[in-house]
Amino acid sequence: MIEFIRIRPEQMRSEFCRILRKHGFDEDEAIGCADIFTLNSLDGVTSHGVNRFPRFIKNTMEGFIRPGSKPSLISSFGATEQWDGNLGPGPLNALFATDRAVTLASASGIGMVTLANTNHWMRAGTYGLRAAQQGNAMICWTNTCPNMPAWGAKDARLGNNPCVFSVPFGDSAVVLDFAMTLFSYGKMENYRNAGKKLPFPGGYSTTGTVTNDPSEILKSWRPLPAGYWKGSGLSLLLDILAAVLSGGKSTHEVKSCSSEYAVSQVFIAFNLKILHNCDSVNDTISAILGDLKKSIPADEESAIRYPGERIEAFRNDNQVNGVPVDKALWTSICSL
Amino acid sequence: MIEFIRIRPEQMRSEFCRILRKHGFDEDEAIGCADIFTLNSLDGVTSHGVNRFPRFIKNTMEGFIRPGSKPSLISSFGATEQWDGNLGPGPLNALFATDRAVTLASASGIGMVTLANTNHWMRAGTYGLRAAQQGNAMICWTNTCPNMPAWGAKDARLGNNPCVFSVPFGDSAVVLDFAMTLFSYGKMENYRNAGKKLPFPGGYSTTGTVTNDPSEILKSWRPLPAGYWKGSGLSLLLDILAAVLSGGKSTHEVKSCSSEYAVSQVFIAFNLKILHNCDSVNDTISAILGDLKKSIPADEESAIRYPGERIEAFRNDNQVNGVPVDKALWTSICSL
Repeated sequence: MIEFIRIRPEQMRSEFCRILRKHGFDEDEAIGCADIFTLNSLDGVTSHGVNRFPRFIKNTMEGFIRPGSKPSLISSFGATEQWDGNLGPGPLNALFATDRAVTLASASGIGMVTLANTNHWMRAGTYGLRAAQQGNAMICWTNTCPNMPAWGAKDARLGNNPCVFSVPFGDSAVVLDFAMTLFSYGKMENYRNAGKKLPFPGGYSTTGTVTNDPSEILKSWRPLPAGYWKGSGLSLLLDILAAVLSGGKSTHEVKSCSSEYAVSQVFIAFNLKILHNCDSVNDTISAILGDLKKSIPADEESAIRYPGERIEAFRNDNQVNGVPVDKALWTSICSL
Repeated sequence: MIEFIRIRPEQMRSEFCRILRKHGFDEDEAIGCADIFTLNSLDGVTSHGVNRFPRFIKNTMEGFIRPGSKPSLISSFGATEQWDGNLGPGPLNALFATDRAVTLASASGIGMVTLANTNHWMRAGTYGLRAAQQGNAMICWTNTCPNMPAWGAKDARLGNNPCVFSVPFGDSAVVLDFAMTLFSYGKMENYRNAGKKLPFPGGYSTTGTVTNDPSEILKSWRPLPAGYWKGSGLSLLLDILAAVLSGGKSTHEVKSCSSEYAVSQVFIAFNLKILHNCDSVNDTISAILGDLKKSIPADEESAIRYPGERIEAFRNDNQVNGVPVDKALWTSICSL
């Protein structure tokens, strides 16, 4: 079992900044990346926050992530732009692409930006939240290395290709951030680290039986797609679209998960202000969520929530009390 | 058990045409609708082809579907247009919206058309195939009446909101057409009619236990979302986006499934010809599918297929041998 300590977000951010500067990122890049890793941790997504930070530094040292590298425009047409991420830091490339898509959408109602040759964007929801702050709905996704077998297959040839659907709501957003596996790798690692079983069978053991033991699935690389054939099919289509629209690599070209780099991403922003009924967007969403909340729970333990509903509670708690971090992990981060 | 006869597609189409003309559709509308119901049946999707035709006529007689009604423009901005479907026949409205989105995409790279107050579009894949014929990728979806409980809930407040992701490929397309329930209602009806159990638990019985008996789930209205909380979350976001982007009704406003009408739909077309790498689109898709096909099957019964792969085989077989139709159903259709 892991011993957790709570780290204040300011301390976390400043430690990340120090390490990023030491590894070749300029001040703006270091602040930008440190902000994202800290915010993801604050929001409770430590799997793509503090827990993932050492790997980000490792990938930088290996040359997969290139400090100082900025996106460059490949082509543009109407409301669309294709950019080369030039292997720059994934979260900064993705924020840039989000903001460009929002800009295109302000001129055309809808805007699409694609990134080829970019890197892992960490938490997918970050970009849905960013678009929401600017009053935009967003659909965005990334492909990944091959980490999920197709439905009916043993060997991982599809990515889990995290995908976001988001809309602004009040001061925050409704943000659906989901990988194509039933349980994301980060989630399975959290369960394993806590010594817990998954609440549902999430993949196959190394001996080929369906299991809810996360450590077995993390060894076998045979997670189940969400919705079986449906998650498998959606993964395939997201990969095809990412590769085709960006002109970048598809999952089978990314090849290795130990050194995943040069992935492809798509960002589609929807400017809600230009809509005929824009005044009522928030009311419409409020009424839909209000109806959802009237649902009769299946049992006493069931809670009916909308995607992203708990972000604020996590953020507020962690802001006040600090982010829970594996003590050994934090010690090793501080030595980077 | 049902006795099947095989009906030649020309006979089916001409019978549909006759009945549609009799129920107030003009010649163009009748031909347009008959084509879609026949093609869906030819492609093996009888649940949204011949099997659904009597309900389409019933909904027309009830006044939910209005012959002669055409879409009217509500607003347009840049690469986006909002249309009112005016309760016209859903498949024709959806074809119209697909073609408009393709036209917008030819000017702007990407184009979005929304429909408020439209009707059931039958088979979602129809519109992905139509966009593909014009060299466009497409993402489109519809909301529905409340026919699926949210994850953790007993009562159906979400729709199963069928969604399409498609890309042209060779002379055809890769078309993912999926409802948010693990098994669509049409699929569950097919299993029930064939006296078969579902291959996986697909929902709850009327007494609240998880079951693979399709007739129990069709009674309880408690299908499981695909990927549990993931299908539930995606259903919610598709509904919010459909309502907000179109200005039309959301699932909770559609209310009744016995007389579902005035749904909202979104069509996003992607013009692949304007892309920097457009020459290689087909090669890229071919390479991705080629890699997928190298998958090691999990067991002897597993086949690794891409979405839409079997359409051509169904179509060719049914073209030559006729579409398999429930004999009693066909007799009742001929009496309409």
